[in-house]
Amino acid sequence: MSESVRIALLGCGVVGGAVARRLSEAKDEFAARVGRPLEIVGVAVRDTGKDRSETGLDASLFTTDAETLVTEADLVIELMGGMEPAKSLLQKAIESGASVITANKALLGQHGAELYELAEEHGVDLYYEAAVAGAIPLIRPLRVSLAGDSVHRVMGIVNGTTNFILDKMDRTGAQLADVLAEAQELGYAEADPTADVEGHDAQAKAAILASLAFHTRVRTCDVHVEGIMGVTADDIRAARRIGCVIKLLAIAELVDKGGSQAVNVRVHPTLIDRSHPLASVREAFNAVFVETQMAGELMFYGPGAGGDPTASAVLGDVVQAARHKVTGGRGPGELSYANLPIEPIGASKTAYFIRLDVEDKPGVLANIAKTIGEQGVSIESMRQGVRRSQDGLATLHLITHRSSEADLADVVERLKASEDVREVGSVLRVEGE
Amino acid sequence: MSESVRIALLGCGVVGGAVARRLSEAKDEFAARVGRPLEIVGVAVRDTGKDRSETGLDASLFTTDAETLVTEADLVIELMGGMEPAKSLLQKAIESGASVITANKALLGQHGAELYELAEEHGVDLYYEAAVAGAIPLIRPLRVSLAGDSVHRVMGIVNGTTNFILDKMDRTGAQLADVLAEAQELGYAEADPTADVEGHDAQAKAAILASLAFHTRVRTCDVHVEGIMGVTADDIRAARRIGCVIKLLAIAELVDKGGSQAVNVRVHPTLIDRSHPLASVREAFNAVFVETQMAGELMFYGPGAGGDPTASAVLGDVVQAARHKVTGGRGPGELSYANLPIEPIGASKTAYFIRLDVEDKPGVLANIAKTIGEQGVSIESMRQGVRRSQDGLATLHLITHRSSEADLADVVERLKASEDVREVGSVLRVEGE
Repeated sequence: MSESVRIALLGCGVVGGAVARRLSEAKDEFAARVGRPLEIVGVAVRDTGKDRSETGLDASLFTTDAETLVTEADLVIELMGGMEPAKSLLQKAIESGASVITANKALLGQHGAELYELAEEHGVDLYYEAAVAGAIPLIRPLRVSLAGDSVHRVMGIVNGTTNFILDKMDRTGAQLADVLAEAQELGYAEADPTADVEGHDAQAKAAILASLAFHTRVRTCDVHVEGIMGVTADDIRAARRIGCVIKLLAIAELVDKGGSQAVNVRVHPTLIDRSHPLASVREAFNAVFVETQMAGELMFYGPGAGGDPTASAVLGDVVQAARHKVTGGRGPGELSYANLPIEPIGASKTAYFIRLDVEDKPGVLANIAKTIGEQGVSIESMRQGVRRSQDGLATLHLITHRSSEADLADVVERLKASEDVREVGSVLRVEGE
Repeated sequence: MSESVRIALLGCGVVGGAVARRLSEAKDEFAARVGRPLEIVGVAVRDTGKDRSETGLDASLFTTDAETLVTEADLVIELMGGMEPAKSLLQKAIESGASVITANKALLGQHGAELYELAEEHGVDLYYEAAVAGAIPLIRPLRVSLAGDSVHRVMGIVNGTTNFILDKMDRTGAQLADVLAEAQELGYAEADPTADVEGHDAQAKAAILASLAFHTRVRTCDVHVEGIMGVTADDIRAARRIGCVIKLLAIAELVDKGGSQAVNVRVHPTLIDRSHPLASVREAFNAVFVETQMAGELMFYGPGAGGDPTASAVLGDVVQAARHKVTGGRGPGELSYANLPIEPIGASKTAYFIRLDVEDKPGVLANIAKTIGEQGVSIESMRQGVRRSQDGLATLHLITHRSSEADLADVVERLKASEDVREVGSVLRVEGE
């Protein structure tokens, strides 16, 4: 038992540094939990000249030769991000018999299936708890704890940056651009925030969650995505007036298509009732709400990003994969036996919130209700917002019953063409009862 | 691969029935997830004459001979509850090479260590996700997902009955006895509610959580327990006035004893701030808040009881243990390497809320502050509640800084002896910042 489990680290940024530090600080605990010591045998970086003394790692461990390193380890932890060389290195590691741990949601969202097949073929573990919702134990509960149940729906706040922005807008009334600038200053948003605010980060995570929940291969490109850049302070205020809050949600659900089932996956700004457990998720926190046949409603909450939290998730996977190396066995592989069709977004049904500027004159509400009804969309509620005497307009807030994206698009076209309507301000989806 | 994994069920009440139904309804899904079909080979019950057709099980499967049944299965699911014969049957099952799954918190809280050692010795799995917080995936996250991190504190609402009662008292202002009667009518509380309202159910769960979180053997009898029967409508109202809510919390924390560490475990009614994530847990829901060194603050939320939710947790364990039977390997065993001392409750430090009836006359507040200060306990806040002109008394709400149970007991004695104090109404612990 004196032999160690050999670990290769690919990438040594904020998360990699935290992983390395923790492995050295808690050496004895890891040895007790795994049954053998864990040993970092090398760290692949782009520039070996950089000072990394704060990681506590010997300078001789750093190498630019990732290709060789991955063939010399029992476990390979990939924290480089991006498609290449991450993908080729993980493939090479698996082919060399290493179990692999990755936090790379973009790679998994696009090429997860290939990597899974390779891991299956070589009898190794492929773990990725850190790829979705950072520190929150979520992947393992979905893969293992709920394996005897049947998941109907996963609905989550999986991007901290956008939640920080929307929460701040909700609490201060500020416009998105101002809050984004502040988030960038505080380090909650990147200098180029595109991946977050356009929803691409959440999109990849939604694909991973849907694949796990429904035992079906869902790729990032299968996920309909709308970002938050169109959300205005007016929308947030209107949502608040009807007891709602706006969150960027990743939603994956099973839908019944007249006897057979399909998977519906999407990411978009969503109005939810303030009493919903997801509504009270503040700042950059993440939370994922899971609905199952037997367990009912579950929620998992915690920090979705950051060096230490992400390292916590990575290291949980490390202990599990290392135990398998020591005692034998393997974690569950990919299960895609259900192989359900993915519903096109046009067919997906949700309720909608519509904010309109209309002429402030008698009969307008009736006309608008008629226009909408003629498209087969029914109205759940309709209320007048602010009346503006200066330009003779009034704001109108509508919530429809569940209708298809296609029908709703027709409604919006008709409203835009109506002479009573000056402007269709916002169209946002509404979730929950 | 045509051979099945043979399952024995001990007990066929609400949870056992739900497990049996689900195993038969989702036969194909279980086979896909495990890699082989799962087959119930027998169900041990006290009375085989009872009509159990709603379980979908063939009548010939029911037996009173549990002793023989447990030697004929690959997996044994124990849902009888209580100490004996559950303990002997689980021991016999393990000795026969079966992996075992149990929801029996009372048994684990008292004899967990013995069972663990036996499972280790025989190389089988012992799983118990359903024993704490029902459907909520919690045991596996603590055992596996957070295995690379270090847990500082676990604080949870783990008893649905008492949460239902306290939540209802908070929302309606009613007295405990009335709400308890209503809970009994609605089926949220047993005819004999002792185990719930006296905190014994939560006590066993706290022992299980503390053992897992701190890798130390903590038994039910090591856990200090106070039930909710002393909580009055006045306490709830007073808590509300200072922005708090009263919850029955199971708390397990690591405490620093001048260089070395100890474990502090207790169950008691607790004031927490309304902004704390646990404060908004309504009705009979459970939620567990976990604080770790790296991940920070995590919360797990869901239904804590009920046939289907509990069956969901049991069946997740079944799939995992069955996979191990098919593909080899084992889950993590008990880790008690840390073997920390358990702090006696007298040494444990918390803040306290004290509700007093005092003489409504000048100088009383100063006298009381002096009395408390002389015992080395410092006051965080002090505010006067209702003044009652009819009897010349006023209610006083005090919150102390963190002090030891022993010092606080002295303070209460001194207050009771003070001529300014008519009555010490309540003394409750306060948690959170």
